[in-house]
Amino acid sequence: MNTTPTSQNLSHLRHSAAHLLAAAVMELWPDTKRAIGPATDDGFYYDFEFTQPKSSDDFEKIEQKMRELVKSWKSFEHLELSSDEAKEKHPGNPYKHELIDEHSEMGNKKVTYYVSGSFGDLCKGGHVEHPDKELKHFKLLSVAGAYWRGDEKNKMLSRIYGTAFFTKEELEQYLNRLEEAKRRDHRKLGKDLDLFTFSDLVGKGLPLFTEKGATIWRELERYVVDEEIRRGYKHVKTPNIAKTDLYKTSGHYPYYKDTMYPPMKVDEDELILRPMTCPHHFALFMSRPRSYKELPIRYAEMANLFRYEKSGELTGLIRVRQFTLADSHNFIRKDQASDEINFVLDLIEDITTALKLTKGTDFTYRLSLGDRNDTKKYYDAPEEWEFAENCLRDVLKKRNAPFYEAPAEAAFYGPKIDVQMKNVLGKEDTAFTVQYDFCLPERFKLTYINEKGEDEQPVVIHRSSVGALERVIGFLIEHYAGSLPVWLSPVQVMIVPIAERHIDYAKKIAETMKSTISVATPTGIRVELDDRNERMQAKIRQATLQKIPFIVIIGDAEAETANADQQVAIRTREGKDLGTMNVQQFIAQLKNDIEKKI
Amino acid sequence: MNTTPTSQNLSHLRHSAAHLLAAAVMELWPDTKRAIGPATDDGFYYDFEFTQPKSSDDFEKIEQKMRELVKSWKSFEHLELSSDEAKEKHPGNPYKHELIDEHSEMGNKKVTYYVSGSFGDLCKGGHVEHPDKELKHFKLLSVAGAYWRGDEKNKMLSRIYGTAFFTKEELEQYLNRLEEAKRRDHRKLGKDLDLFTFSDLVGKGLPLFTEKGATIWRELERYVVDEEIRRGYKHVKTPNIAKTDLYKTSGHYPYYKDTMYPPMKVDEDELILRPMTCPHHFALFMSRPRSYKELPIRYAEMANLFRYEKSGELTGLIRVRQFTLADSHNFIRKDQASDEINFVLDLIEDITTALKLTKGTDFTYRLSLGDRNDTKKYYDAPEEWEFAENCLRDVLKKRNAPFYEAPAEAAFYGPKIDVQMKNVLGKEDTAFTVQYDFCLPERFKLTYINEKGEDEQPVVIHRSSVGALERVIGFLIEHYAGSLPVWLSPVQVMIVPIAERHIDYAKKIAETMKSTISVATPTGIRVELDDRNERMQAKIRQATLQKIPFIVIIGDAEAETANADQQVAIRTREGKDLGTMNVQQFIAQLKNDIEKKI
Repeated sequence: MNTTPTSQNLSHLRHSAAHLLAAAVMELWPDTKRAIGPATDDGFYYDFEFTQPKSSDDFEKIEQKMRELVKSWKSFEHLELSSDEAKEKHPGNPYKHELIDEHSEMGNKKVTYYVSGSFGDLCKGGHVEHPDKELKHFKLLSVAGAYWRGDEKNKMLSRIYGTAFFTKEELEQYLNRLEEAKRRDHRKLGKDLDLFTFSDLVGKGLPLFTEKGATIWRELERYVVDEEIRRGYKHVKTPNIAKTDLYKTSGHYPYYKDTMYPPMKVDEDELILRPMTCPHHFALFMSRPRSYKELPIRYAEMANLFRYEKSGELTGLIRVRQFTLADSHNFIRKDQASDEINFVLDLIEDITTALKLTKGTDFTYRLSLGDRNDTKKYYDAPEEWEFAENCLRDVLKKRNAPFYEAPAEAAFYGPKIDVQMKNVLGKEDTAFTVQYDFCLPERFKLTYINEKGEDEQPVVIHRSSVGALERVIGFLIEHYAGSLPVWLSPVQVMIVPIAERHIDYAKKIAETMKSTISVATPTGIRVELDDRNERMQAKIRQATLQKIPFIVIIGDAEAETANADQQVAIRTREGKDLGTMNVQQFIAQLKNDIEKKI
Repeated sequence: MNTTPTSQNLSHLRHSAAHLLAAAVMELWPDTKRAIGPATDDGFYYDFEFTQPKSSDDFEKIEQKMRELVKSWKSFEHLELSSDEAKEKHPGNPYKHELIDEHSEMGNKKVTYYVSGSFGDLCKGGHVEHPDKELKHFKLLSVAGAYWRGDEKNKMLSRIYGTAFFTKEELEQYLNRLEEAKRRDHRKLGKDLDLFTFSDLVGKGLPLFTEKGATIWRELERYVVDEEIRRGYKHVKTPNIAKTDLYKTSGHYPYYKDTMYPPMKVDEDELILRPMTCPHHFALFMSRPRSYKELPIRYAEMANLFRYEKSGELTGLIRVRQFTLADSHNFIRKDQASDEINFVLDLIEDITTALKLTKGTDFTYRLSLGDRNDTKKYYDAPEEWEFAENCLRDVLKKRNAPFYEAPAEAAFYGPKIDVQMKNVLGKEDTAFTVQYDFCLPERFKLTYINEKGEDEQPVVIHRSSVGALERVIGFLIEHYAGSLPVWLSPVQVMIVPIAERHIDYAKKIAETMKSTISVATPTGIRVELDDRNERMQAKIRQATLQKIPFIVIIGDAEAETANADQQVAIRTREGKDLGTMNVQQFIAQLKNDIEKKI
């Protein structure tokens, strides 16, 4: 929730633009019924019920009308009307009438109404003072269906989106960023680069990763798993289904049941797809007695999780109906909490560094706190909350980590640190979290035997190291605009023989690369050979479009060295000519880049 | 189905033993109601309704009575009785009465009844001629609950299992094998070696792999995946759920719906946990047009699959409710079929060799054929069946592979080669299969563009390379009696410092091993340090019981070399003393063993 004055003004500007949009639409198509039109983080929208469908082809006409009308908008005049008066202003409009009725049912005698030029609208207020002077730099962006009040049972309206800025430069910058985001859209690149696909037969929100997409997945998965194991995490493997009772015991059920799949009745049991891993790891912890000497015990897993998302909310790899979380539950003594949070953040920062994401720029931390007054939403243990929140805050402060606090954003079982990633448009989203939990250990009666031989309750840190693999892959595709670092690239080298007579040597080079087995290349260097009967330039162009990091070109000069010191000519996907070099030297360099994740 | 004369006689002997068991029980506890008592592959059983529960503590008493009674059993006298006469022989016994009624409902006027000594029983026949002379070497083995006629709605009876042989030696051999099987039982070893666990809270048939079990899993998975990729398989990643319609399109639904989980209704769709991967891989194949030049396309996946098994059929890791199949679907031109089957069998035999399983001894092939007359069960395309069956048979013959044929054991969509593994008791089971499919490509209308530019239908080879990971892990634990080869061992080296003053050097050695990163040891050598304040012999014993391949002992002599040439003393889990050697030399040897899978 950003509430600085600048953004407030911007939101006033954009809300004013929404009025202007509605005014233009009503002038052009007077039989339209208008619903609501707020400002958003990125602009504004207005929902309409049109008698004839509208498309982006109509935007120019609407914008022109907006520019024409705004000249006469000297101010927004504030009126207070009775319900009946307000309804008269919107004859035959069920949306406005519904809002007015609700308002009066809540005990309000008057509704507020704003007039600018000859256009009036039911409105809570929040506009610029001089629309004719301030509201100049706006742009309509898209139109999409939206249910009245977001409810699928209601009528589908047409939502027109737009944005507005105070200066031309800001608007242009934003539109450029939008263009850039479109170019980087992982859904488009996923198709162009053949990384994943969707199938109507399989179902919505269920991506199928092709060989290339699965390669990125495998590289990322093994990197994270191996890194975690080296640091002392115990990687385990637990089932994707469990008895519904498990989630009732854990207390997750009431909070998550809306996003859980329906239970499946088999035998005397009711099974359910798991939405999280916690209780499975708790079951492992409880499988035998534990001593304080064993702690911390860190159970990590690449866990398949299943959450039902509404079809309207599904977005490529970012919002899916099955995902794989790099998950872990760290069972600790309470006095180990600070060390453990640091241990977890160290890993997160090492992984983000390896992925070339910059702390403070590409991501930041959010400290999500509980609310001591809301014991319905948050587990009622004020002292534990206090301790845990202070612990997380202190760690972040001592690390000089960039963070801000967010009241009442915690999990029901404790406060958390959210890793907030910024996407190409600068929009911030929670990518994954580090959670301090003193509630589930109590619900499951987890214990370990302490130094005195007594039962004691551990604290659990729930954490991810990189989030859901699907989501991070989608994010990385956009971050790198498809040009993934060489270690993550599905094809690392494309070999381009110029003529047919160069194919033999090209094959030999390909074989040498394929059989380069090392810890960073367990299945060899990923190489393809373009032996089609095409012009060299076309092949290079194709490999460049496919964002293949290195293109090895084999012509007469190189082929002549086949039985000597084996030279190859190298180009990069950025179009840089690296000249010719010995193939073993190139491989050594490549292996080094892959190993070091350069 | 083994029907050699010897085993027939053995089955006669065992069936006779079942009579004898029932006779002894009726003498000892005359108010018992007896049900049925057939011979089985390994022995015999008899089902009883006791008035007082019996346990293995009663076996000696029963066996003694059996030995006593059999002396007077000179033969089995065959009688033919009317239903009423037969019922009189079993007064108040609802089980026998039910069988007699069924027999007469099927139109039979007479039932057969056999008398030996003073004991008679309703029976179809099949006994030894001279029980007093032949029936000497028997043994009762266990007692378990069993529903009358296997139906959960019926009464639970007590089933007493036993076995019998013609010679004392054979019986003893069998009992030794049974003991050995108990010792090797993966469920017991899984617990003793802390490899996996089950949780009532999570649910039946859903194993949770601990760190150690998950390590075996990861090693096996990466080995198979990397081996497949090196050979040209495209590893992909597809979701665990799909629309129920997908399995209706594929035609799997009617055949598999009894073992599929119930569908889950979400939005307008019905989703279901996938019981197999085929249609997902077909969806990938169909995601863009294909050319003959691309074939074979081999989509491989470590696929999570879900089949509902009755709780009575669940067995450790061998029969579970969720499993991970090393699956693949190879899309080929029909003329590539022989080559492809060979390609697939080559991989299977290389993997089994790496796991030290011997062809012909540990596993054999079964060629499972269709039935041209049963067009309800088998897809109706006689010429395709003929071609496919001949193709598989020819390949097996040309390879000189050990195989036998099994009529009417094919999949509904084509014939298959079953990989039949033998367990410790010599019992054969289908571990996984290679299937030739000409039916699903037709159902899904799969096509590729052939040399002439026309649409043509591919053939699909469904195959696994090693079966389900859960099952193969269970099998390997038993095969190796827990002493897994070093590359699969969860802990590869245990370091045992003799006294506290040796711990520093022991830690140094452990660190050196942990940081030995190579393609075969991406997370270092898996080493543990036993720094407990215990006697050396106790620590060695503990490591041996945990089946850790190498035990490194650090005493004064070794610790003295800490800053010199770093010597260590090595023992194996077999108790062999390998003497002292330089630590780098030991690591090099170990790395070699791991890499070569020795």
